[in-house]
Amino acid sequence: MSNTKTERMPVADELEQKASEMTVGNGEEDIVDPWNVTSASAKGVDYDKLIKRFGSSKIDDKLVERIERVTGKPAHHLLRRGIFFSHRDLHFILDQYEQKKPFYLYTGRGPSSEAMHLGHLIPFIFTKWLQDTFDVPLVVQMTDDEKFLWKDLTVDEANRLAHENAKDIIACGFDINKTLIFSDLEYMGQVPEFYRNICQISKLVTFNQVKGIFGFGDSDCIGKIAFPPVQAAPSFSSSFPHIFNSRKDLPCLIPCAIDQDPYFRMTRDVAPRMGCLKPALVHSTFFPALQGAQSKMSASDPTSSVFLTDTDKQIKNKINRYAFSGGGATIEEHKSKGGNCEIDVSYQYLTFFMDDDEKLEQIRKDYTKGELLTGNLKKELVAILQKLVREHREKRSKVTDELVKQYMTPRKLAFHY
Amino acid sequence: MSNTKTERMPVADELEQKASEMTVGNGEEDIVDPWNVTSASAKGVDYDKLIKRFGSSKIDDKLVERIERVTGKPAHHLLRRGIFFSHRDLHFILDQYEQKKPFYLYTGRGPSSEAMHLGHLIPFIFTKWLQDTFDVPLVVQMTDDEKFLWKDLTVDEANRLAHENAKDIIACGFDINKTLIFSDLEYMGQVPEFYRNICQISKLVTFNQVKGIFGFGDSDCIGKIAFPPVQAAPSFSSSFPHIFNSRKDLPCLIPCAIDQDPYFRMTRDVAPRMGCLKPALVHSTFFPALQGAQSKMSASDPTSSVFLTDTDKQIKNKINRYAFSGGGATIEEHKSKGGNCEIDVSYQYLTFFMDDDEKLEQIRKDYTKGELLTGNLKKELVAILQKLVREHREKRSKVTDELVKQYMTPRKLAFHY
Repeated sequence: MSNTKTERMPVADELEQKASEMTVGNGEEDIVDPWNVTSASAKGVDYDKLIKRFGSSKIDDKLVERIERVTGKPAHHLLRRGIFFSHRDLHFILDQYEQKKPFYLYTGRGPSSEAMHLGHLIPFIFTKWLQDTFDVPLVVQMTDDEKFLWKDLTVDEANRLAHENAKDIIACGFDINKTLIFSDLEYMGQVPEFYRNICQISKLVTFNQVKGIFGFGDSDCIGKIAFPPVQAAPSFSSSFPHIFNSRKDLPCLIPCAIDQDPYFRMTRDVAPRMGCLKPALVHSTFFPALQGAQSKMSASDPTSSVFLTDTDKQIKNKINRYAFSGGGATIEEHKSKGGNCEIDVSYQYLTFFMDDDEKLEQIRKDYTKGELLTGNLKKELVAILQKLVREHREKRSKVTDELVKQYMTPRKLAFHY
Repeated sequence: MSNTKTERMPVADELEQKASEMTVGNGEEDIVDPWNVTSASAKGVDYDKLIKRFGSSKIDDKLVERIERVTGKPAHHLLRRGIFFSHRDLHFILDQYEQKKPFYLYTGRGPSSEAMHLGHLIPFIFTKWLQDTFDVPLVVQMTDDEKFLWKDLTVDEANRLAHENAKDIIACGFDINKTLIFSDLEYMGQVPEFYRNICQISKLVTFNQVKGIFGFGDSDCIGKIAFPPVQAAPSFSSSFPHIFNSRKDLPCLIPCAIDQDPYFRMTRDVAPRMGCLKPALVHSTFFPALQGAQSKMSASDPTSSVFLTDTDKQIKNKINRYAFSGGGATIEEHKSKGGNCEIDVSYQYLTFFMDDDEKLEQIRKDYTKGELLTGNLKKELVAILQKLVREHREKRSKVTDELVKQYMTPRKLAFHY
């Protein structure tokens, strides 16, 4: 790998450096790290502040326009609506694409529970769009080792959950010829280059640094302390010699929720010292819990979200009962004062899942004016979610163990050099 | 694995616990950890004190007799002469052997330089005797990852040195049907069970603990902090499913120099919590540097030891020039006052390498009385070392890359169930 290439990625290193020391929030600030998302404000996390603190860049209208221009396709609604709101070096990836040079996508999932919820689907829905639009290969990391280390799970159970969750990911429709899904616990024992890269990263990061970035303490187990390089390593194409024909210099684009950024700030910090390219990123906001935007959803609280295993009836009940409403307390009040879309969870969910822009805008206007009642807004959402979950369930039911095995076998992926 | 088996290994857990907090020496005590051996005394490390501090047990005459009785063979001179001087749970291993139950040997080497020296050979000479005497399989860990993390080496260079050093180990004559040599950097990517065990160990050890045991600090890289479980994992037979036919409950005996004990105190601490057997150990004293017993030899100082690549002439020169003498300053003084075998490095080396007990005892007597001159003592040693190194070099020259590959391929080893 040439240094020229490394230098081609423009980065405000100092800012990044500072930001990594600031991840663990103080009383005033939102806390956003891979294990905690807590906001001081009832409106939820202040994403503009987060961009400043993390040292990333906003995805603005100009950038969305450039994506459309470069790909010749309309931008995904998750992009247009500011749900993927922040990035690092996305311009570099677009430059690559314009020059017909290849890159790859990397995203992941921590398999801590059998049933995934709607929020878990967001990065995969967007990643599928990226794969289709840019025609690039994708690696999906199942961090079963992480879940073993952080949760009260056995190694076998964590690995089993990785396979179960892989079925949901496959059901999102990723191209089998361009997609590798891998479990850390398995892949580590299949491809020596993965551990090699982990060693190289681990040599360049001190305990002091992971303390600052992730908030680890002296009484944390050393497994946790050793984990960040495991999530960092797939950012380097050399971790996938079978997949990328031993190419070590393929640029990487990582779509993920913003809480995963600390891992990749660390990765970007060590990359040049390893002679590697810094991965580029696109960050999403958090999918709100049914109870409101203050926190991420919890897979362990069944009333906090809609699960991909919920029945039509369960979906209807959950939305009607638990989805926090920004509407008036009474029909009269609603009609006179109107509803508040900013805090209305059902409306928020529509921004994630309704692809019809015009209809969404009409709903926003009508609800804000009080012309659309909360019940009707919820009805609209219930129908969309029921359809989405039903279709997902159908697709997932067709994913056999054999197919999972195929997706999870390290092999050369088809892509244009 | 049943708890009964775990409980069968009698251990003073509290003592171990205490000892692990005491590894990092204070001003008064010898410092003995995997990276530092420094003695406060000119006589070198006080091994009796070390046994107390580490909480291990002395190998006394009674135990040596038991080994001879159980195996029906004379004890190796490294055992008879107190060079392997300390143990943990060796009685349990002898019980196993008496009951015709299998166990395996585990030892290792940190490949930091091309040329190994005499001191590096000691554990392998003894391990070969153990393998032959007990007819048991052996796994040899080449910690190329450790050397990459601690030294100014690339991953490739560390891995290359692992292969070079493997040739020296093979030249010691280990039975290919009963011996696996493995490089961490390679084996990690071959056998998922290795990483699984590493994860399990890593979950049970805190940063505070490795700080106490190994003296790590906040500015150490997380690679170092993550390493101890890598050296611990081969203590569990489940790390070698191919080798041991997926048997998870094979007891392990580790021959090593006492400075490696901190790794295995940690291992023994976590073993019961993993439902695994604690590994048993036999510890050796340090092979003295030519300049004297105060410290271990350094592979980076060519005058500190005899290397396995030294010529006859180099060996002769090194012993004559650098081997610290316990003899008189002049011939007259030597003849009148006699020599001091306790501090005479050439005599010490003879205890390691001369197998004839009677002749050694005669030399000791004659030298102590001043009847044997230093020059003659050294001549005796030079001849033995020249023969040993010459024979080693011949055997090593016959070790092909293909043979190394065979030894380093995970495969079923022959042993009696």
